[in-house]
Amino acid sequence: VLSEGGDGSLYGPLFVDPAVARAFSDRATLQAILDFEVALARAEASLDVIPDSAVAAIANAANVDAFDIPSLGREAVAAGNIAIPIVRAFTRLVRENDEHAARFVHWGATSQDAIDTGAVLQLAVALRIVDEHLDAVTQSLIALAQRHIATPMVARTLLQHALPTTFGLKAAGWLSAIVRARRRLARAGAHAKTLQFGGAAGTLAALGDRGLDVAQRLAGDLSLAAPDVPWHTHSDRFVDVASAAGIVAGTLGKIARDTSLMMQTEIGEASEPAAPGRGGSSTMPHKRNPVSCAVALAAATRAPHLVATMLAGMTQEHERALGGWQAQWTTLPELISVVSGSARAMNETLAGLDVNVEAMRANLEITHGLVQAEAVTMALGAQIGRAQAHELIEAASKRAMAEHRSLREVLVREPTVRAALSDDDFDRLFDPTHYLGVARQLVTQAITEARS
Amino acid sequence: VLSEGGDGSLYGPLFVDPAVARAFSDRATLQAILDFEVALARAEASLDVIPDSAVAAIANAANVDAFDIPSLGREAVAAGNIAIPIVRAFTRLVRENDEHAARFVHWGATSQDAIDTGAVLQLAVALRIVDEHLDAVTQSLIALAQRHIATPMVARTLLQHALPTTFGLKAAGWLSAIVRARRRLARAGAHAKTLQFGGAAGTLAALGDRGLDVAQRLAGDLSLAAPDVPWHTHSDRFVDVASAAGIVAGTLGKIARDTSLMMQTEIGEASEPAAPGRGGSSTMPHKRNPVSCAVALAAATRAPHLVATMLAGMTQEHERALGGWQAQWTTLPELISVVSGSARAMNETLAGLDVNVEAMRANLEITHGLVQAEAVTMALGAQIGRAQAHELIEAASKRAMAEHRSLREVLVREPTVRAALSDDDFDRLFDPTHYLGVARQLVTQAITEARS
Amino acid sequence: VLSEGGDGSLYGPLFVDPAVARAFSDRATLQAILDFEVALARAEASLDVIPDSAVAAIANAANVDAFDIPSLGREAVAAGNIAIPIVRAFTRLVRENDEHAARFVHWGATSQDAIDTGAVLQLAVALRIVDEHLDAVTQSLIALAQRHIATPMVARTLLQHALPTTFGLKAAGWLSAIVRARRRLARAGAHAKTLQFGGAAGTLAALGDRGLDVAQRLAGDLSLAAPDVPWHTHSDRFVDVASAAGIVAGTLGKIARDTSLMMQTEIGEASEPAAPGRGGSSTMPHKRNPVSCAVALAAATRAPHLVATMLAGMTQEHERALGGWQAQWTTLPELISVVSGSARAMNETLAGLDVNVEAMRANLEITHGLVQAEAVTMALGAQIGRAQAHELIEAASKRAMAEHRSLREVLVREPTVRAALSDDDFDRLFDPTHYLGVARQLVTQAITEARS
Amino acid sequence: VLSEGGDGSLYGPLFVDPAVARAFSDRATLQAILDFEVALARAEASLDVIPDSAVAAIANAANVDAFDIPSLGREAVAAGNIAIPIVRAFTRLVRENDEHAARFVHWGATSQDAIDTGAVLQLAVALRIVDEHLDAVTQSLIALAQRHIATPMVARTLLQHALPTTFGLKAAGWLSAIVRARRRLARAGAHAKTLQFGGAAGTLAALGDRGLDVAQRLAGDLSLAAPDVPWHTHSDRFVDVASAAGIVAGTLGKIARDTSLMMQTEIGEASEPAAPGRGGSSTMPHKRNPVSCAVALAAATRAPHLVATMLAGMTQEHERALGGWQAQWTTLPELISVVSGSARAMNETLAGLDVNVEAMRANLEITHGLVQAEAVTMALGAQIGRAQAHELIEAASKRAMAEHRSLREVLVREPTVRAALSDDDFDRLFDPTHYLGVARQLVTQAITEARS
Repeated sequence: VLSEGGDGSLYGPLFVDPAVARAFSDRATLQAILDFEVALARAEASLDVIPDSAVAAIANAANVDAFDIPSLGREAVAAGNIAIPIVRAFTRLVRENDEHAARFVHWGATSQDAIDTGAVLQLAVALRIVDEHLDAVTQSLIALAQRHIATPMVARTLLQHALPTTFGLKAAGWLSAIVRARRRLARAGAHAKTLQFGGAAGTLAALGDRGLDVAQRLAGDLSLAAPDVPWHTHSDRFVDVASAAGIVAGTLGKIARDTSLMMQTEIGEASEPAAPGRGGSSTMPHKRNPVSCAVALAAATRAPHLVATMLAGMTQEHERALGGWQAQWTTLPELISVVSGSARAMNETLAGLDVNVEAMRANLEITHGLVQAEAVTMALGAQIGRAQAHELIEAASKRAMAEHRSLREVLVREPTVRAALSDDDFDRLFDPTHYLGVARQLVTQAITEARS
Repeated sequence: VLSEGGDGSLYGPLFVDPAVARAFSDRATLQAILDFEVALARAEASLDVIPDSAVAAIANAANVDAFDIPSLGREAVAAGNIAIPIVRAFTRLVRENDEHAARFVHWGATSQDAIDTGAVLQLAVALRIVDEHLDAVTQSLIALAQRHIATPMVARTLLQHALPTTFGLKAAGWLSAIVRARRRLARAGAHAKTLQFGGAAGTLAALGDRGLDVAQRLAGDLSLAAPDVPWHTHSDRFVDVASAAGIVAGTLGKIARDTSLMMQTEIGEASEPAAPGRGGSSTMPHKRNPVSCAVALAAATRAPHLVATMLAGMTQEHERALGGWQAQWTTLPELISVVSGSARAMNETLAGLDVNVEAMRANLEITHGLVQAEAVTMALGAQIGRAQAHELIEAASKRAMAEHRSLREVLVREPTVRAALSDDDFDRLFDPTHYLGVARQLVTQAITEARS
Repeated sequence: VLSEGGDGSLYGPLFVDPAVARAFSDRATLQAILDFEVALARAEASLDVIPDSAVAAIANAANVDAFDIPSLGREAVAAGNIAIPIVRAFTRLVRENDEHAARFVHWGATSQDAIDTGAVLQLAVALRIVDEHLDAVTQSLIALAQRHIATPMVARTLLQHALPTTFGLKAAGWLSAIVRARRRLARAGAHAKTLQFGGAAGTLAALGDRGLDVAQRLAGDLSLAAPDVPWHTHSDRFVDVASAAGIVAGTLGKIARDTSLMMQTEIGEASEPAAPGRGGSSTMPHKRNPVSCAVALAAATRAPHLVATMLAGMTQEHERALGGWQAQWTTLPELISVVSGSARAMNETLAGLDVNVEAMRANLEITHGLVQAEAVTMALGAQIGRAQAHELIEAASKRAMAEHRSLREVLVREPTVRAALSDDDFDRLFDPTHYLGVARQLVTQAITEARS
Repeated sequence: VLSEGGDGSLYGPLFVDPAVARAFSDRATLQAILDFEVALARAEASLDVIPDSAVAAIANAANVDAFDIPSLGREAVAAGNIAIPIVRAFTRLVRENDEHAARFVHWGATSQDAIDTGAVLQLAVALRIVDEHLDAVTQSLIALAQRHIATPMVARTLLQHALPTTFGLKAAGWLSAIVRARRRLARAGAHAKTLQFGGAAGTLAALGDRGLDVAQRLAGDLSLAAPDVPWHTHSDRFVDVASAAGIVAGTLGKIARDTSLMMQTEIGEASEPAAPGRGGSSTMPHKRNPVSCAVALAAATRAPHLVATMLAGMTQEHERALGGWQAQWTTLPELISVVSGSARAMNETLAGLDVNVEAMRANLEITHGLVQAEAVTMALGAQIGRAQAHELIEAASKRAMAEHRSLREVLVREPTVRAALSDDDFDRLFDPTHYLGVARQLVTQAITEARS
């Protein structure tokens, strides 16, 4: 986005889906602006605003290969935006074949119309790709939630063992959040598919009384909605997309955080899929690094600030902004790019997630029954009161930890407890699969919602 | 939010709507958690999870005045959250009257259930107040757009005079953006009205197989939706509200930016309403400072970063977060507070905006016709080609500026122009009210949309 | 900072050092402005700008208890800042005793002078407290680094076991970063101790030709530097403090991240100090939650955005800003407050950190020698080439993992390896304490630097 | 930075200094890593860690042109960072000429050593270029401050006319802030010129007891400092540079804000330098857009969030981070790039700033003496008390505004005023050049400080 000499090949592929990178490439940016100009000519000719004969010449010249992109970039410095040199070069190309048609290039439009509508067209392409990844993530999560609906694992709060849960429920939580995030992004993306067309002041004055008709045709031709008023200096639809994309990044980041924590050498409950050269280390041949999680967590670190930039760019002056708009030009593509890389990485990870059910089970046991403390507390509390049960279990837990014995061993020697609980109660209370509450139903609800 | 000793009275009123400040006060926070606990007891008793007899004792003890808030705050330091000391103190209060009932306080719930659901309840109150301000802003903007549908003023791009527009169209642009921003916030707020209830692991295990039933009743009692799965560590609904609120702040900030620019001494096209003591200066008695705009612009400066904090807090670990959740506790209230102050300030400003139609008209003239350059270029371009017309008008404009003459004077001496344009054409082309395109229709469209 | 009715007692203590909360309280804010006004009167009287007789009356009235803070807050809404109502109320109080003296209150100053210089005075107090915590953290880290200079533990990269290191070296890394962060904050804080005094335009015109003399005396009286020019609308010194505080938060956050990861139930290498009620859970009596780490990580989540707000507030208009300045008023106190809470929490944690040397040793072994892979690779590589050694060890590591055998067992059966390495070599290469490189020297260097 | 297919030519030149773009290009990134590897071999050979004979072969292969950058980028996806494929490809190239030497490529180093030290080398180049722009800005500002030391203009607070000041003093305020910002960046940049070299765990274990010696030589060879401990996962020096760069962006943004406000059509006190095609509009030939200011304001909008990303990336896990480090890789280059574009743009603007002294003078008059209100208030206040004078002038100002008369005209009819002030007093008090306080001395102080 930033460099002068044609770059982004080194770090790009790691962080950005290649198709999204293409959607925001210099060529695609130029193409989108040319698409706007051609559609404009078509719309205007169809309404006799410009001569019909101009359309073919204009359409024929709209060939990205005929432009010298680095030159356009250099000319943008003095012009203050890229549309001015693009329109100038485009007009020149049209003129080479048809002097008359050249008069009608960009007729009645302003730079912002071309830049913003072009950005909308590029955004639509990029969001489609992100959505495909999110669809795949959704399917992977449905499968994981279903497959592991009864796989017990420990729930961890503040990174400490808490109670038993299931991996299916953890996956269902991820699923539910991804479904919401994807729907939000889809809705925001749909709203953003809106034409910007107002001319220099937003009045479409250069088109006399034909402004609204041209706008309608132009929007239709580009498969965009026509807004109630031109939205130059009101970039809220873009910012809404940015926010929704930021939430996608945060949600994927949460999944990546959990996954990378489960991948820890000491925990080993899940791994990113193995592949030759994947996640290896030059000096530690045994490593299997969470490289996709790192991409998603990097994206989750960057996205909030790119969203904030979009928001900060909103206080735009009068009918064209001085700084805020310009800050948004490259920020939205960068954000969607970053999110695309995260979505691709987590798609890959979740599609092939290597789940270690035995390790999940083994980790449940390492506190020697302490994760069952609540089960016992609740059972006991129903009989002797929650407060007293709590104190009793708290003391027993401390003793168990101090004496390196299991909680069960300690409790069976407590007369109060023995009086309240039978051996069968003990068996049941210390079996994690008997303390899963409505985990199964919650998983089912999440899957149903995801499929709705 | 931050101080220990009861503060916020000095800077608070300037930046926060007092009713919203109350909605997020310590008392309201405590009350919301107590409301959750009472509703929980009711729901559980109705399903025979706890004895019916416990409900009255629990409900009776839920009196904010009986709590020592500073003590609760100090106990939260060791506990790590406010729910632990609150539940402890609440249980103590219940026990004073009914030892048995005290056993059933907070039955089957975890701290996060109380904190997050409490936050949802407070949020709903605060958003209602913000929405009222936005409704009032909407009505003011409809009135301004309508009243000034034909009031010409200059459109400014990059702070330079561009073309004529109307103040009605500028207000319609504000209106259209506020309508969208308000709808987004309403939708996000509605989604956020969702119960959090999962127990320590999200499985509701402490309630055996009654978890879902309790959740349904509890949600219904609190007028919240019951989610497909508990959403602890998935804070996206809160973040969505934050983003939508951030867009509101940005939109109000844009209006404030425009208004304060129009209020500049040299421009004088609009002023914040006058009131005794309002916007005065201690040393410059003649000043009428844009104090409301300053509040809205300060909010627009702060909001993006509060949104970013919410987003950054999303990568939450496993079943309870270590840092991300805690960062969100005070950030969302702070953001909504900041937005409320902005909404209140701009509501006041727009309700009484002092519009100076003469100044708008006078400013249109100060470039001696240069803002009509496009009108002439388009008219001329239709006859001699846009590129040539552009060059010709550009040269004439420069000459006009250099010679301190009006563009019209210069142009009438250009033979090419004289050949192409009649005196009537000149009259029309140099009358700004004849170059307003579809401004009127756009205003009407925006008002129609706002009312839909 | 935000609420109207005297709040912050509930969440405040958890996140903010109480002394810092007091330093930024409403009372302290008012006091600092009064301190400015009194020092101003003294400086002006000493230079015969105002009558000597006015000083005593002005000084006597500067009593915080005589002010109605909530009223001041409400009056600030119309005034646009707090200095206007404070100066008005102060003048009234002076007038009650000495009508003549009241004429000379705030003489030649503007609101921004009082607000900004007051903020500098409060900042100095707060930074002193933060610095004390950082000093204590430094001493704790020196002690930890020294005590554990030879305590082996596993180094983890991307949360995977990598190689052996020592806990001393990890602590030395923390130490080195804290020392740098503390020095940066001290330097930035020293630069920020600069008087703001310029009058309404920055020219000190109301003082005729005595402006610089008054500024010098005033600065001296308040123990502040006198700047080359008034810095209203150039808030870089505050932003520099904010950035340095943000780096402190990030550094403490990194320590908290590491500590909380070491506290995981499965890892158990370190714990926050135990204390009654500390880190407990209402439903899981055995838990020992990293509550201080949560505070530090929450601070590290919030601080970047508060810094960003300070930076975003820098583009201030002309001689007094419209939004940017106002956004900074409460943001810097909030940031320093957040950082103070983090520093206090990590001070407490590091002073009493419970290090489990046995667990560190045990965790080193769980990969059955794989963390020694590099040691073997390097030794082997010196003889057969790094690339070949790398491939060989990679294959052996995979076999070891697949066959659940130790790396050593697998390697002793490799003829190439056996030819290159003796039994003694094997013993040495698989002893983690023999592969610690210059860890000891690095720790010594860090301690030396910290003490310099 | 992000795209896959070689981009950045379109938007890049507008926002980034081309030399800085080159310093952060893919080629430069690769070159810096190769520079590290060659210097490492040299240092190790000089200490007999690797054979002397290997150095030449390693140095000869370090030719950027021999690498396929897009391939490296694609391989980085599986590897998780760019150093792994670069080292692999580099080793292959060395091996082509010298199989033996290839064994010693990257000896004892880890990916992070190469990436971070490479980044330091690139940063040093880029900061030199930024510093040159800031030096030029400083010189321009000294010249402006000096030339306009006595040029009166109006000071504006909250965009309202306040009092007279001089353009020299405004420029001196800019100057003073730029000098501080430049010094901070230089100091932070100097601290950041620090070697990262620790091997996989930070212990340099692969180098046995020679680790510190190699580090010393390596640092010396690269003109970097050797740190007390390796700083992997402690990125504070980079973040400090980022913060300092952010303050530069904010300071330049403030200058751009002021300049663009002075460029407003109605105000016309200053303009960016004219040049063919510069700041023109395709449809409004008369416009002279503040294109450089737009670049600087866009940079000031983006920089805070890039700084925040750097800060947010600080909470890095253990001995190599999972997300935080990766997020910083492209963020720091992007931030410095953005700042370079701002510095270049404002350098250009300030070097050729077109100051309109007459407009400044004319604007001073448009309030018909109201900006002299403070002068009169102070003079009057000295005789009748500030409060009474304030009220009297406030009333007179209102009358003047209401009756469209000058303040002087109104005041001469006020008996109280007439009694207190002579005709000469009136002449003096209504001459803005007589109410400039110590503006001249302040300018001199700022210039002296800038030159020190």
